[in-house]
Amino acid sequence: MRTRSRRERSLDAWIAGLAARDRAIIGEALTLVESTHPEDRARAGALVAALHVRPGMGRALRVGVSGAPGVGKSTLIERLGMMLVARGRRVGVLAIDPTSQKTGGSILGDKTRMPGLSTAPEAFVRPSPSGAELGGIAARTREAMVVFEAAGMDVVIVETVGVGQSEIAVRDLTDTFVLLVLPGAGDELQGIKRGIMEVADVVLVTKADGLMAGAAIRAATQARHALRLMPRDDGWQVAVLTVSALEGQGLDVAWEAVERHRMHLEARGDLQARRGRQAVVAFRRLLGEALDAHVARAFAAELAALEVEVAAGRVAEDAAALTALGWVVG
Amino acid sequence: MRTRSRRERSLDAWIAGLAARDRAIIGEALTLVESTHPEDRARAGALVAALHVRPGMGRALRVGVSGAPGVGKSTLIERLGMMLVARGRRVGVLAIDPTSQKTGGSILGDKTRMPGLSTAPEAFVRPSPSGAELGGIAARTREAMVVFEAAGMDVVIVETVGVGQSEIAVRDLTDTFVLLVLPGAGDELQGIKRGIMEVADVVLVTKADGLMAGAAIRAATQARHALRLMPRDDGWQVAVLTVSALEGQGLDVAWEAVERHRMHLEARGDLQARRGRQAVVAFRRLLGEALDAHVARAFAAELAALEVEVAAGRVAEDAAALTALGWVVG
Repeated sequence: MRTRSRRERSLDAWIAGLAARDRAIIGEALTLVESTHPEDRARAGALVAALHVRPGMGRALRVGVSGAPGVGKSTLIERLGMMLVARGRRVGVLAIDPTSQKTGGSILGDKTRMPGLSTAPEAFVRPSPSGAELGGIAARTREAMVVFEAAGMDVVIVETVGVGQSEIAVRDLTDTFVLLVLPGAGDELQGIKRGIMEVADVVLVTKADGLMAGAAIRAATQARHALRLMPRDDGWQVAVLTVSALEGQGLDVAWEAVERHRMHLEARGDLQARRGRQAVVAFRRLLGEALDAHVARAFAAELAALEVEVAAGRVAEDAAALTALGWVVG
Repeated sequence: MRTRSRRERSLDAWIAGLAARDRAIIGEALTLVESTHPEDRARAGALVAALHVRPGMGRALRVGVSGAPGVGKSTLIERLGMMLVARGRRVGVLAIDPTSQKTGGSILGDKTRMPGLSTAPEAFVRPSPSGAELGGIAARTREAMVVFEAAGMDVVIVETVGVGQSEIAVRDLTDTFVLLVLPGAGDELQGIKRGIMEVADVVLVTKADGLMAGAAIRAATQARHALRLMPRDDGWQVAVLTVSALEGQGLDVAWEAVERHRMHLEARGDLQARRGRQAVVAFRRLLGEALDAHVARAFAAELAALEVEVAAGRVAEDAAALTALGWVVG
């Protein structure tokens, strides 16, 4: 039933349903943009293109949240999201998890991790789409952000576990990248400093409560001090703050830093430039995957034979890459 | 002078110098395999191919060490490496850091992080090569491991910061992947469990000393308990251990787990299969980069024009990818 309505709904009906903030329509629109079915893809493309040019689009804050397993991402998003909802903001949450198929089910998709946000009428929590390459997931997530915005979300949070490439993907999808770190990380100032400079606009030292409170404050102070000596190209001073999702401490200040970063981007005219660059990155990733898929399809037998030689160590990897490039380039 | 000798040395002289464990020759051989100069590339390819077929090659333990910034990677490698040296093992350390150019100098390359190992005659610490794509760095690191092995290293440790793609690259280069996590990560069992299952053969909860000791032991116990319920495809039971590099506690048990994992691989005949798969992964990454470079070169003007449209939001990313694929496929 759902599938049929998804495929029969007119563009105007989609747009009106999203504008009316109809939860069923929001959910179906997300399913549509996540679908890999060619018909759905065409419909999703038309919908997103139509939404793109509507007034007021592009205003939502796109916030990436990442951190190592166990750092407390979902608890923080739950508490932060509920705080925003209490302030009258509408909050959409998306998760990126390119490994969810491999492990047979996405942990990030488990709505029970965010019991309040999952049931709040002003919020919408969407598990990660599974079964696709990272480029495909990133492209779908970009479309899902547009759907959320059309449905009146003021804030879109994209969550990922800070393991591997998905972290980079989330940074490339959002305006402000928030990195969560555990207390106790203050000892290796160099490492933390570098990690921060590389990836994060805002760093939150989590679990700043109980026995950890002292360590968290110390880590944040040290990192902040070190960062002051290293100005960033874009003139932004990375905010390093402590939070306790358990006690609700620091969430307001953390959110203030996110809003300050957004204003910083806008004041410099960097927001559109950043989003433009992100679109190009997404395009290049999709092109790379399309090229890989083309080679795998058009030269399947040759590729299989060459890979046997590479695996056995009889052909060096760069020599093999040149050989395969020759098939394509001709 | 060095450059000239590097380019004039015969294959036999290289091999003899490495076999004699001549530190200057080891350093120059690493420089040779890291070089992107076409002449050096040819020489490096010939050297690595010649070394590959020598007796005794392929026996060194290849150990990947990763973890978030501040988790204590370098301290652990320093202590672990010195322990191995004291046991009569020879230890080579390589770092992977694809971002080192961007930040203008690699933190991972800072030898002062490992003062003992850097100066021990039985060890060799090599900073990350910079200025290359990840695929190129991974390929160079694979060659550097062969150089180290030819120079009699029993253990090669490849270190990377656990942020982004380099973590995956290191896992794809080594036999045993050791993930370092901070204590306090025990609260989100699901997350930790998943992170562990995805990436690690051995998990070390670091900084298990002082105020953190209790939290570290609790985190490890919880993770171990959870993992017991989740058997892995390859029959390996992930080892979760606590270590304190500061107090030297747990290093011997940690190393025992690494050796146990290597034996597990060998007993199942998985070691050669794993290394063969790694070579194929390295080949595919190089091929992907070669295809990207080809498109950027052969269709520079068209690509630039298309990217302007994508950045402005006038052409959707997947549509653009299909267009560009059309140029290549014709």
